[in-house]
Amino acid sequence: MNIMIKGLKELTVKVGFFVTLFLVVCQLTPVSVSAEGALLASWNNGPSRQAIIDFVAAVTNKEGPDYVDPAERIAVFDNDGTLWSEKPAYFQLLFAIDRIKALAPHHPEWKTQQPFKAVLENDIKALAVSGEKGLIQLVMASHSGMTTDEFEQIVTDWLATAKHPRFKRPYTELVYQPMLELLKYMRHNGFKTFIVSGGGIEFMRPFTEKAYGIPPEQVIGSSIKTKFELRNGEPVLVRLPEIFFIDDKAGKPVGIQKFIGRRPIAAFGNSDGDLQMLQWTTSGKGKRFGLIVHHTDAEREWAYDRHSHVGRLDKALIEAKEKGWTVIDMKKDWKVIYPFQK
Amino acid sequence: MNIMIKGLKELTVKVGFFVTLFLVVCQLTPVSVSAEGALLASWNNGPSRQAIIDFVAAVTNKEGPDYVDPAERIAVFDNDGTLWSEKPAYFQLLFAIDRIKALAPHHPEWKTQQPFKAVLENDIKALAVSGEKGLIQLVMASHSGMTTDEFEQIVTDWLATAKHPRFKRPYTELVYQPMLELLKYMRHNGFKTFIVSGGGIEFMRPFTEKAYGIPPEQVIGSSIKTKFELRNGEPVLVRLPEIFFIDDKAGKPVGIQKFIGRRPIAAFGNSDGDLQMLQWTTSGKGKRFGLIVHHTDAEREWAYDRHSHVGRLDKALIEAKEKGWTVIDMKKDWKVIYPFQK
Repeated sequence: MNIMIKGLKELTVKVGFFVTLFLVVCQLTPVSVSAEGALLASWNNGPSRQAIIDFVAAVTNKEGPDYVDPAERIAVFDNDGTLWSEKPAYFQLLFAIDRIKALAPHHPEWKTQQPFKAVLENDIKALAVSGEKGLIQLVMASHSGMTTDEFEQIVTDWLATAKHPRFKRPYTELVYQPMLELLKYMRHNGFKTFIVSGGGIEFMRPFTEKAYGIPPEQVIGSSIKTKFELRNGEPVLVRLPEIFFIDDKAGKPVGIQKFIGRRPIAAFGNSDGDLQMLQWTTSGKGKRFGLIVHHTDAEREWAYDRHSHVGRLDKALIEAKEKGWTVIDMKKDWKVIYPFQK
Repeated sequence: MNIMIKGLKELTVKVGFFVTLFLVVCQLTPVSVSAEGALLASWNNGPSRQAIIDFVAAVTNKEGPDYVDPAERIAVFDNDGTLWSEKPAYFQLLFAIDRIKALAPHHPEWKTQQPFKAVLENDIKALAVSGEKGLIQLVMASHSGMTTDEFEQIVTDWLATAKHPRFKRPYTELVYQPMLELLKYMRHNGFKTFIVSGGGIEFMRPFTEKAYGIPPEQVIGSSIKTKFELRNGEPVLVRLPEIFFIDDKAGKPVGIQKFIGRRPIAAFGNSDGDLQMLQWTTSGKGKRFGLIVHHTDAEREWAYDRHSHVGRLDKALIEAKEKGWTVIDMKKDWKVIYPFQK
């Protein structure tokens, strides 16, 4: 009899165990923060990594004063120079140049017209002289005139075939391994991760889901106008050579408000183009986090800051010190730069 | 002894039950579609309800030819007349009118200036004469000049206090119970639900999460320009009296592509303003679903279609028949209209 009663008790304990297991797992309680630190495997131990872990621990601790509801855990990431490289030039500009060359046979007039002539003759100096106006002409000529579906295919094909001049690899391999881990780590802790980039929204969307785990609807960027049309009864959206929105500098908080509609609690950037996004994010109420990726590794990547034309980092670095934003020293803080170096 | 063994067996069965429960819930396996139909409790049985259930069953059946990956299960919903009522006028216009009246003491010139004079004197006829231009003037005067945070507060306060003239209830109670169930049903089946409305994006966002379970970042609408500024070192976004984007008619597919970046597989509307959104959604590859809410219930709500100024439904109703879109007959298909009628 006693043995039977003991057996019953054991089984009751087992039932209790499964009930507990059931409750724990179904609450989707995140693993402890220290265990999660292991997700940041390519980050060296140090104040930068610790600042990230401390922030995440604070806003996810239900008992603590800094707890943030999951719905409000919005994190925004710049793309060029923050999630992937931006040298020798923004990859989108290299795409535009390749497109101009591919389209040149249909545009004999480009042989004598700047900035197209400069592109076709690989004349970097003449291209630089054409300035921002020239750049916009290149983008318009290469990014408009087709439907959105066609453009998506053009970008997809280019990303599948083009190679980076220095690393001889597809551009989508030049993403930062530590940032991939960080994105996952944030999402694992209930954050919704968004890209907020000066780059073209429809240039990024074809690869962000695969490269970063960020779906198209969480990508904010610059864009040109599009127009809805029926072509033989089939609806299409045609890309027009006219700017719709520039998602850079003071445009970043505007884009965030327009697309997300709430203020992020964490922002990650690498240049002065991210300054206003960092200001907007970190000045909200409650616990906030700002981070700047400082390019300090000339050997494994590139080293540049205040004197760089692309990705200039000057004012934002000064303000980072004043405001207590975390500054990543790529050389010191990151074990590897790219996934292929793992 | 036998009693003990029986007790043990019962407990074993209980353990088995909890293990099963644990596995079922933790896999988050959706319940069978027929069981889910119960989620649509305010829908009468009939072809409309069945069409919804059949579509959802088809795109979620992994073994079937119409299966759609959860990431691509995007459903878009118009707001005015589709998720909540739009009579006697768009609720946002009633908000603008209340705001003009509240601001009038600071604008003595409005006493003699149209369309403001008409609003202050409740002169509907003069207001109608001022046309679209007058409407835009009212919106600009009432929706701009403050920060985005201030505007959110103004909208929140108005929604908390203003009452609908016919039902004497807050406007947020005039949401359609069957559509609330439909939104949940879609999300339960892995859909991401978006609002795509001609209404103001920042007018909707303060209430959509609570009213519909749709977070701000899944609300697309019309908007005015905003400008980033530092005020005594504090960043703000100031609302400017200038149109940024009109998310109506041919603007809806444009807005969808801009904000979501992929084509929805299901669209829900109620007027000709939703025609292009329905065309764009249902002309994509694979299984698609289009639905129109036809306002046929003069007693419980309003009955209107092709002769209505607000929410005119004419071309889209004709095309619905040609294209096989589902047309909801509110009177016949819905057991109740509003949650308070349950």
